Amino acid sequence: MDSPNLNELRVIGLPPLPEVRAGDDLARQIGDSIDASGLGLVDGDILVVTHKVVSKAEGRLVSLNAFEPSDLASRFAEAWGKDARQVEAALREATRVVRMDRGVLIAETRHGFICANAGVDASNAAEERVCLLPIDPDRSARMIRDDLRRRFGVDPGIIISDSFGRPWRNGIVNVAIGVSGLAPLADYRGLTDGAGYELHVTVIAVADELASAAELVMHKLEQRPVALIRGYRPPTTSPEGTGSDLVMPPERNFFP
Amino acid sequence: MDSPNLNELRVIGLPPLPEVRAGDDLARQIGDSIDASGLGLVDGDILVVTHKVVSKAEGRLVSLNAFEPSDLASRFAEAWGKDARQVEAALREATRVVRMDRGVLIAETRHGFICANAGVDASNAAEERVCLLPIDPDRSARMIRDDLRRRFGVDPGIIISDSFGRPWRNGIVNVAIGVSGLAPLADYRGLTDGAGYELHVTVIAVADELASAAELVMHKLEQRPVALIRGYRPPTTSPEGTGSDLVMPPERNFFP
Repeated sequence: MDSPNLNELRVIGLPPLPEVRAGDDLARQIGDSIDASGLGLVDGDILVVTHKVVSKAEGRLVSLNAFEPSDLASRFAEAWGKDARQVEAALREATRVVRMDRGVLIAETRHGFICANAGVDASNAAEERVCLLPIDPDRSARMIRDDLRRRFGVDPGIIISDSFGRPWRNGIVNVAIGVSGLAPLADYRGLTDGAGYELHVTVIAVADELASAAELVMHKLEQRPVALIRGYRPPTTSPEGTGSDLVMPPERNFFP
Repeated sequence: MDSPNLNELRVIGLPPLPEVRAGDDLARQIGDSIDASGLGLVDGDILVVTHKVVSKAEGRLVSLNAFEPSDLASRFAEAWGKDARQVEAALREATRVVRMDRGVLIAETRHGFICANAGVDASNAAEERVCLLPIDPDRSARMIRDDLRRRFGVDPGIIISDSFGRPWRNGIVNVAIGVSGLAPLADYRGLTDGAGYELHVTVIAVADELASAAELVMHKLEQRPVALIRGYRPPTTSPEGTGSDLVMPPERNFFP
């Protein structure tokens, strides 16, 4: 199938994990899923892991009753038909509120991410729990990478992903919130194209694009939290980095 | 390689096209590239086409000398060390300016997209030209789709892509600006997961994720403007739509 004039990557939704619980060895579960897939692990492989299973393993699935609503949370919840404890959970995860209006709360997290509800996921509300973001997704990625390297003898790239909304664009997309073992940004500055022209594109957020590619095989209804990307060839020699590199530096931020 | 418990898609950068010129039959060039790849076209295939070759074929590569700078363009260009004709081109493509400060111009296009320089690409500046967005990328996608269907007897999905910056996130990513023959949004609202819980995720911008996946094999330095995505299985039964469906409706827009 391969030909020198094609450039191909495969994006593979791995077999479902067992239900992840606090304290579980997630790297082992991912390793077992790789084994079950029959694909093994080879140099250059990248694993994209939905943050939700990371959060669960790290004990970040928290009872709603842990969040005693403040007056602000109560008023906002009442005005917009929300659960005040969910609003309170988001406010406690926030370091800054960007928008809080019309039932929508967009806030900055301790990691510097700006997203709905400061990353608090209420999809377990039926069981009276919310899922908070991992404390340090870069560390979570690094630990999964270390464990998989020990098990398979191959050093994979790891991306922890979440789905974020975007100003001006409809729908949410997967982005990278934790990264280990790959360059999150492909920096083309100063490079020239085939015709010798300096490239206008500057820096591409390839980790976000890899996270988005992975979402396409994760299928929410099938609970596939891990995707394997094989055959990705980094387009530049940009250095390895972390999810923090994907946060816009304040001096280049036009949207406070 | 395939197993019932994997969910795999392939993202393939097709062989380079010849240099595209105004008036070229782009669909024929893409068809020739598919033939050269040996992959053919099968049901469910999606082709992602960089807008730049579409713009070129449609005569949207325009001499900088066509843009007589206004006073505003001249002052902004002088203050920030820019080419006033490039600034003027962006202002003429804009229907609204969102930010114009510190050398950065973020503007709304006639299509409703909000992006740097109203989508004007200055990477051909060395040859004194700028590349404007296609007038109607959805129509461009539909025409390529119609031509390929006639040639191959298979109805592909087509995405016209561009790279956009994002507030708060470092680096640019590929998004879909024109769509034909696929559902740009996967709407999970009202669906329940394996455990019977209604899904919190609402609407995923799968066309943007497909565009991002394609960028990973396009490699700017190799000039691969077309990627073939094979094996994508839409996760929901959401209806087909266009690139306009990816523009946030005004009533849900928190970032005017």
